[in-house]
Amino acid sequence: MTDEYFMQQALREAKLALEEGEVPIGAVVVVQNQIIGRGHNQVERLNDCTAHAEMIALTAAFNNLGSKYLVDATLYVSLEPCVMCAGALYWSKIGRIVYAAADDKNGYRSVTGQQSPFHPKTKVELGPYGEESLNLMRSFFVQRRK
Amino acid sequence: MTDEYFMQQALREAKLALEEGEVPIGAVVVVQNQIIGRGHNQVERLNDCTAHAEMIALTAAFNNLGSKYLVDATLYVSLEPCVMCAGALYWSKIGRIVYAAADDKNGYRSVTGQQSPFHPKTKVELGPYGEESLNLMRSFFVQRRK
Repeated sequence: MTDEYFMQQALREAKLALEEGEVPIGAVVVVQNQIIGRGHNQVERLNDCTAHAEMIALTAAFNNLGSKYLVDATLYVSLEPCVMCAGALYWSKIGRIVYAAADDKNGYRSVTGQQSPFHPKTKVELGPYGEESLNLMRSFFVQRRK
Repeated sequence: MTDEYFMQQALREAKLALEEGEVPIGAVVVVQNQIIGRGHNQVERLNDCTAHAEMIALTAAFNNLGSKYLVDATLYVSLEPCVMCAGALYWSKIGRIVYAAADDKNGYRSVTGQQSPFHPKTKVELGPYGEESLNLMRSFFVQRRK
């Protein structure tokens, strides 16, 4: 089980969002090579701007583990988390975050700058399939302009 | 209907949290003098570190209005929002935020510094009953040390 495999799973979630007319972002939470939470953006369906892929995947993971901390988990997400999701990840004390593509407009770094919003023990990495993720985003915006 | 009245309602929510053994933070969302969302911290009960008072009150307000934006709403919350909740408030485009007491440790300003994480049109104010809010927080930590 590799980062590639789990990021593909996150992209699969992103594609589900695209099919539903949502901004195509997907996420999975993994512990010991097992997916314990999945989510894709459901802002439009739920009429709730907090229903981001990461929030849904995190809540699923908390429920699955029966724990409010995810120190041994990795979050794979197709796009750099926003400030809200970064704050949720901080509280979760998650072990590792892998995102496929940077988001210079809405990513957490656009607000927090040099200061990391995460727990000091959380590792953050740019992962595989960045181009695939950005292609999904482009498809969404092309589709919406039509 | 005054800021004092609505902040008392937020404190009432915070007291419910305290009775349930949760960190005592409460919030209400108000549109045209009507409370359209309420919430208190439920992190322990739900085993979910995203179950903050503000997130619960916001989701209730979105459901109530059938809208994912809250441009005409005010959030009253007993403590300065954390980064996660600040991010959620950004997405909601909420008109006004009033918090009773600053939180130098976990409040959003500890991460975002001088840069506002909110929508440019969102007004943010320190409101009434700061001492009452901090007294609730102190009660919680005294109770927990016993």
